[in-house]
Amino acid sequence: MWNECEGGVTAPRGFTAAGVHCGVKRNKKDLALVVSSVPSHAAAMFTRNSVPAAPILVDRQQLRTGSAVRVLVVNSGNANACTGERGLNDAWTMVRETARAVGVPEREVLVSSTGVIGQYLPMEKVTAGIAAAALAVSPAGGTDAADAIMTTDTFRKELAVRVDLGGVTATLGGMAKGSGMIAPNMATMLGFVTTDAAVHPALLQRALRDAVDRSFHRITVDGDTSTNDMVAILANGMAGNTPVEAADDPRYAAFAGALEHLLVRLAKMVVVDGEGATKFVEIEVRGAASEDDAVRAARAVANSSLVKTAIHGEDANWGRILAAVGNAGIPFDPAQTAISIGTVPVLRPPYVIDFSEEEAKQVLSQKEVRILVDLHAGEGSALFWTCDLSKEYVAINANYRS
Amino acid sequence: MWNECEGGVTAPRGFTAAGVHCGVKRNKKDLALVVSSVPSHAAAMFTRNSVPAAPILVDRQQLRTGSAVRVLVVNSGNANACTGERGLNDAWTMVRETARAVGVPEREVLVSSTGVIGQYLPMEKVTAGIAAAALAVSPAGGTDAADAIMTTDTFRKELAVRVDLGGVTATLGGMAKGSGMIAPNMATMLGFVTTDAAVHPALLQRALRDAVDRSFHRITVDGDTSTNDMVAILANGMAGNTPVEAADDPRYAAFAGALEHLLVRLAKMVVVDGEGATKFVEIEVRGAASEDDAVRAARAVANSSLVKTAIHGEDANWGRILAAVGNAGIPFDPAQTAISIGTVPVLRPPYVIDFSEEEAKQVLSQKEVRILVDLHAGEGSALFWTCDLSKEYVAINANYRS
Repeated sequence: MWNECEGGVTAPRGFTAAGVHCGVKRNKKDLALVVSSVPSHAAAMFTRNSVPAAPILVDRQQLRTGSAVRVLVVNSGNANACTGERGLNDAWTMVRETARAVGVPEREVLVSSTGVIGQYLPMEKVTAGIAAAALAVSPAGGTDAADAIMTTDTFRKELAVRVDLGGVTATLGGMAKGSGMIAPNMATMLGFVTTDAAVHPALLQRALRDAVDRSFHRITVDGDTSTNDMVAILANGMAGNTPVEAADDPRYAAFAGALEHLLVRLAKMVVVDGEGATKFVEIEVRGAASEDDAVRAARAVANSSLVKTAIHGEDANWGRILAAVGNAGIPFDPAQTAISIGTVPVLRPPYVIDFSEEEAKQVLSQKEVRILVDLHAGEGSALFWTCDLSKEYVAINANYRS
Repeated sequence: MWNECEGGVTAPRGFTAAGVHCGVKRNKKDLALVVSSVPSHAAAMFTRNSVPAAPILVDRQQLRTGSAVRVLVVNSGNANACTGERGLNDAWTMVRETARAVGVPEREVLVSSTGVIGQYLPMEKVTAGIAAAALAVSPAGGTDAADAIMTTDTFRKELAVRVDLGGVTATLGGMAKGSGMIAPNMATMLGFVTTDAAVHPALLQRALRDAVDRSFHRITVDGDTSTNDMVAILANGMAGNTPVEAADDPRYAAFAGALEHLLVRLAKMVVVDGEGATKFVEIEVRGAASEDDAVRAARAVANSSLVKTAIHGEDANWGRILAAVGNAGIPFDPAQTAISIGTVPVLRPPYVIDFSEEEAKQVLSQKEVRILVDLHAGEGSALFWTCDLSKEYVAINANYRS
């Protein structure tokens, strides 16, 4: 139904972008602009943390008016969170300066920040950066923008997908940043998607919510939900398709499937690049009483520090996996539970433990580890993604501010 | 109301104990017996993990009959968890062999195990150890028993408390073991209390539940709840007090207060000895809408990997503390929140950040760190205890089975 293709947020028609260094961070790009040449429908999801950052408060207000959106402005290196009135003023200043520099109404700008919590933005530098970025935007600038939103990320996260909407090819492009404080709750760290598809705003929001539920809501690095999480999509309609306006239009399923694929791929990149991660871990729970139960079980395994350290140590400690499921608060019978690590069945019902430690070690020595838990209690299943917990995670986070 | 005194589970009258090496662990003591010379009232709380270990299943059944208890048998080095029918038989064998060796009815024995999950007990060694321990029990054996229940613990955890019950001095003695998979849920890792006080069984259970709620339920090391958590108390009445049989008897308050003090002290020892811990952290939340809200906020801070690594790095990262409270799911206004680290106010309402980084660093360089969060939203308050998250935690848990 869809094909991955080169590029990121500037792959869809009508989008330009730039990423520049303005001085919030020492040496790296730290300010990104994404611009649509025409007003776009927009949808977004925001963190459920009760301490939302200033840009989250601004964007909620911007989207409340239901107006079109033309520009995303994002800085990294400073989250503008826990900064009170002054931080809120700074976020509005970013909106105003961006509107002025790009030449659009203020209501058509969304703002986002990521980085250290509790410090004021250096607004002179940010303002100068916005002006410079507005001059630099180009159809080739998606990669620079993806670079500029990174914090402790070690590689940029961008992807584009093409999808056929009733004979018209539409493109979706996305970028995201991790890579600590990752336990998205009704939103994510930062994820931005552009598309040239024409989709009704209500369907855009619905497709985004469903796709986030199966992508960014299915990953964890350290179980901490950030104050700045958001994911936004802009749809400018420049692909030329007749607008998708009904959920039972087969083109809606095509679009929603492409969007889910894009977000799952970006979410996996965030986990691969989790702070200190040396292994990517996919957890599949099958045979749960419901999909919700499967998600809860998978999340409990993914958030268990003991499971994550065991995987780091390449130790087939299936007991910790089962104990983690036991903490998920879902009904199941451990005596009916089967667990595999990679291709090695390490636990068969009832409590049959009969596997080669060498084979398990071999499977665990890979960079990608797959854990399958079958509860034999129903039809519910879910995927979840996480990384191992290493000493490097501690090293990175013990001195993040300094 | 109470005084701490020397000793542990053999400090109260009528209790003997022993700790021996039987070979579950390589070199260290691994089997403990605690024996009351007369039948005792017993109360216990068990893990809420849905994968309870075999001894938990046995003890629930033993206590269902409401019979008196005379003996606790505990092995370390192997949790007898996720071991199915065979594990259940092994736990019953431990009960039977202990009853035979000590010379008591089988229904008067409780059994407990701690250590690796998912391996069968070496029953010949365990049986021989029970026989040896039964010969070795003495009024001086409390310390050996406390040694024998340790796993990755680096020091033994025991304490005794004296309390006046209407002119009669009663003694409570306790021992506990940590030190990973610590996020007690309706119980704890292992905690055992003996007392010579005469207390009605229903009041004994109530005092235990209340004390656990404010001690073991207020600590976390790594957010993982064990399959083997239990805390049990035996009360043999040998102090000679007229039995405490009413909750409004002032002696009940005295007894319950002494028990809470004992369990809080043991719980704090568990946190001090948390795997890889270099700092003990006390979190106090004040001004919450209710005590329950205060507990939830404090637990969210205590379980945040980002807060724990920041403390490890001696970084006054108050933003992570506030973000963690934001994830607790309780109503509060971050702009009204104050945070202190030790004696240093690092955040004053509304978002005033004006403190000396040197002073904060000095406070954070101590072995004990105190975090105070005042939400200014009500009268609820709670204490919670945890430790920092270090590279050593990862090292310990990456290769626990090997």
